[in-house]
Amino acid sequence: MDKDLTLDTLAETLVATGRGLHERGWALGTSGNFSAVLTRNPLRLLISRSGVDKGELTRDQVLVVDEAGEVVIGSGKPSDETVVHLTIVRQREAGAVLHTHSVWNTLLSEAAGDAGGLLLEGLEMLKGLSGVTTHDHAEWVPIVENTQDYGHMAADVGRALIAHPRAHGLLLRGHGLYTWGRDLREAKRHVEVLEFLFEVTGRLYAATGRLRAPRQSVPAGAGGDDGGR
Amino acid sequence: MDKDLTLDTLAETLVATGRGLHERGWALGTSGNFSAVLTRNPLRLLISRSGVDKGELTRDQVLVVDEAGEVVIGSGKPSDETVVHLTIVRQREAGAVLHTHSVWNTLLSEAAGDAGGLLLEGLEMLKGLSGVTTHDHAEWVPIVENTQDYGHMAADVGRALIAHPRAHGLLLRGHGLYTWGRDLREAKRHVEVLEFLFEVTGRLYAATGRLRAPRQSVPAGAGGDDGGR
Amino acid sequence: MDKDLTLDTLAETLVATGRGLHERGWALGTSGNFSAVLTRNPLRLLISRSGVDKGELTRDQVLVVDEAGEVVIGSGKPSDETVVHLTIVRQREAGAVLHTHSVWNTLLSEAAGDAGGLLLEGLEMLKGLSGVTTHDHAEWVPIVENTQDYGHMAADVGRALIAHPRAHGLLLRGHGLYTWGRDLREAKRHVEVLEFLFEVTGRLYAATGRLRAPRQSVPAGAGGDDGGR
Amino acid sequence: MDKDLTLDTLAETLVATGRGLHERGWALGTSGNFSAVLTRNPLRLLISRSGVDKGELTRDQVLVVDEAGEVVIGSGKPSDETVVHLTIVRQREAGAVLHTHSVWNTLLSEAAGDAGGLLLEGLEMLKGLSGVTTHDHAEWVPIVENTQDYGHMAADVGRALIAHPRAHGLLLRGHGLYTWGRDLREAKRHVEVLEFLFEVTGRLYAATGRLRAPRQSVPAGAGGDDGGR
Repeated sequence: MDKDLTLDTLAETLVATGRGLHERGWALGTSGNFSAVLTRNPLRLLISRSGVDKGELTRDQVLVVDEAGEVVIGSGKPSDETVVHLTIVRQREAGAVLHTHSVWNTLLSEAAGDAGGLLLEGLEMLKGLSGVTTHDHAEWVPIVENTQDYGHMAADVGRALIAHPRAHGLLLRGHGLYTWGRDLREAKRHVEVLEFLFEVTGRLYAATGRLRAPRQSVPAGAGGDDGGR
Repeated sequence: MDKDLTLDTLAETLVATGRGLHERGWALGTSGNFSAVLTRNPLRLLISRSGVDKGELTRDQVLVVDEAGEVVIGSGKPSDETVVHLTIVRQREAGAVLHTHSVWNTLLSEAAGDAGGLLLEGLEMLKGLSGVTTHDHAEWVPIVENTQDYGHMAADVGRALIAHPRAHGLLLRGHGLYTWGRDLREAKRHVEVLEFLFEVTGRLYAATGRLRAPRQSVPAGAGGDDGGR
Repeated sequence: MDKDLTLDTLAETLVATGRGLHERGWALGTSGNFSAVLTRNPLRLLISRSGVDKGELTRDQVLVVDEAGEVVIGSGKPSDETVVHLTIVRQREAGAVLHTHSVWNTLLSEAAGDAGGLLLEGLEMLKGLSGVTTHDHAEWVPIVENTQDYGHMAADVGRALIAHPRAHGLLLRGHGLYTWGRDLREAKRHVEVLEFLFEVTGRLYAATGRLRAPRQSVPAGAGGDDGGR
Repeated sequence: MDKDLTLDTLAETLVATGRGLHERGWALGTSGNFSAVLTRNPLRLLISRSGVDKGELTRDQVLVVDEAGEVVIGSGKPSDETVVHLTIVRQREAGAVLHTHSVWNTLLSEAAGDAGGLLLEGLEMLKGLSGVTTHDHAEWVPIVENTQDYGHMAADVGRALIAHPRAHGLLLRGHGLYTWGRDLREAKRHVEVLEFLFEVTGRLYAATGRLRAPRQSVPAGAGGDDGGR
């Protein structure tokens, strides 16, 4: 396969994905950033440029960085959170990472922040998460404190990924969602699935004042299906 | 009429319907599945392939299955819930079946789950349901417990259809809506009508903490307009 | 001006307006109906056909009726509520009438139904209503009980129009909004303005349990700015 | 650069921006008005014509006014609030000013009106505001009483801008948001960022009855990050 062709196709898919997330209101303004793995050896990651308007994301605002986050192709500064993307790509062997700021994920990251995470349980939509084959699944979404020290943030995210090896996403408190997948398609599916579950949970919280669905149980050690935290 | 032409037209309508439902947020990710009857003797049903992204549903992801759910035209696995579609097609003589996962139908299926169903009553929008000629109509939407055993699910759905012969739709708890119609147009209308009624009911529930509209009465035997359950 | 050209242009504007209202979720399924005056002497009214899907409204689903509601041009049955449209056209000298079913107008027509109307007051958006020049305006939206007897409904609506000569719209309980304007553009603006005010009022009701904004006063005789009821 | 070309390009961007804001439901009906600086010496400001439907905004509905608000190019009356736009352009050296009426900004301007302003704090999305580099930022959005005396309104807005030199936007009570930026792109980003923060704050208010996020502190003198009021 022609490598430049692959690069162009992947970059265009990344642009279309980012614009679609903005359209749904999940990456308003310059919020959110998106990446996709071009090659693994050596690691080359496509990632959106820092500070660009996601509703007007263009092909030339997609850069290629190496495993240290240095720009290899394209001009401009990659997203400040490139180091978080790289951490997730390495630890989860992800092919794509999407970071969104939705109203519901922001609201829940605050409401459940002190509990250290949010439990999503008992809903069929959970089966949209890779490897989940039943609604009778407890998905623990860890909530990591926000910081402007991105090295610190990446280390915190890395620890959360180790503590919750089966988590499909994590929330930064007051900040947004990180989710990932084998490729951009799977990562986008995970965004839609998690945002749907957040909206159901958030609306039930608004209606009842409680953060859990009626039948949800308290997870052992508050660690969900993957044990301790 | 040219049968292949019919197949193509119907498949394209199914694809457009599915994408429209995704656009409204009622079939995010890979959730939802959609079917339409091509011929009745022998029964040939068009149905969406298992696990496909409904926002990117394409013509070749629509398969044709027979009365046993075996693929007759197309490649890939049909939706896991094909057996539920076939049950509805047979028992309701439906020409199309649509299954959606919306935020409001998920939320209400949990909130009203223990009551075994949800009563929609007194609203003009009810007249959008086939055969309903007045707002003074009590529509009981049965709620069936969710399961990953699809034969079991189909049997439960079949029993609910018999117990509630006048119901226009049913909810799977924590899972979503099944509705149907003479053809895809009518089924799509039923989705829009029921989703509207769910949103009104859900927002009133959020505002008042009660699941019924102010003037709604408790149905005799909790069975709505079609008697016992 | 070529009269057929006028008819075609007006019908196309009516179709575009109707589809736009469906797109916003204000006329889901077959709900809603829309009309525009073609000529006044004799009265010729364009109106959408009964029972058509508003998301797929087409040019040939727009009929022309006379002052008695009889079809003059086109085939099929005009909307059942044609008599209500004709009443509004006559009493308000309206050039266009739009009838929508939104979630918020349905919810408020129930929540405020026993009060006989809803007061919208103190918001700048009120200036979008024809003739209103200040936010310091009290708009009383009368709520009329719903019925399937359309002659009865038209008479009730006629009485409400007389009782509230300055009202820009009215709600049918559990049913929807009727608003109107000099032409389709003004009527559409009134839909957007009233739906906005309904959503603000409905969300404040959900948040506070009260139907009025903090600074709203009780209208004298509950009749708003136009005196008694 | 060809000046007419600049004018046309800027006017088209203004039209596209306005239509986009209408599409999101932030400038329904004829609400909202939008401006952009063409030249500074002498001051020439593009601004939308008074009373036009923002969903159908066209190139010829964009006028050019001078520093006194007199029309220099185009026909028709400029927005009544032109004097407010001019005040902001002068005091903030803004290149563009956008004024929107959203459901959430209207609701919050009422709910927080008596407090004289709304505090937005601790959320990552704040970094979408120009010059803000950390989520640990307290943005005080002043709320100015509404009036139909536009000279009075402009003076009140001018005083609020002086009292809160670091504010990125302000609310008119029961009326809407004014925000601005170096250019139309930045102003549009500020609308998206502030509307997002309003929606999060409004939904938390609906869920909890409190206007502040859990971790928000009371600002010294209720003046947020810019001191006294």
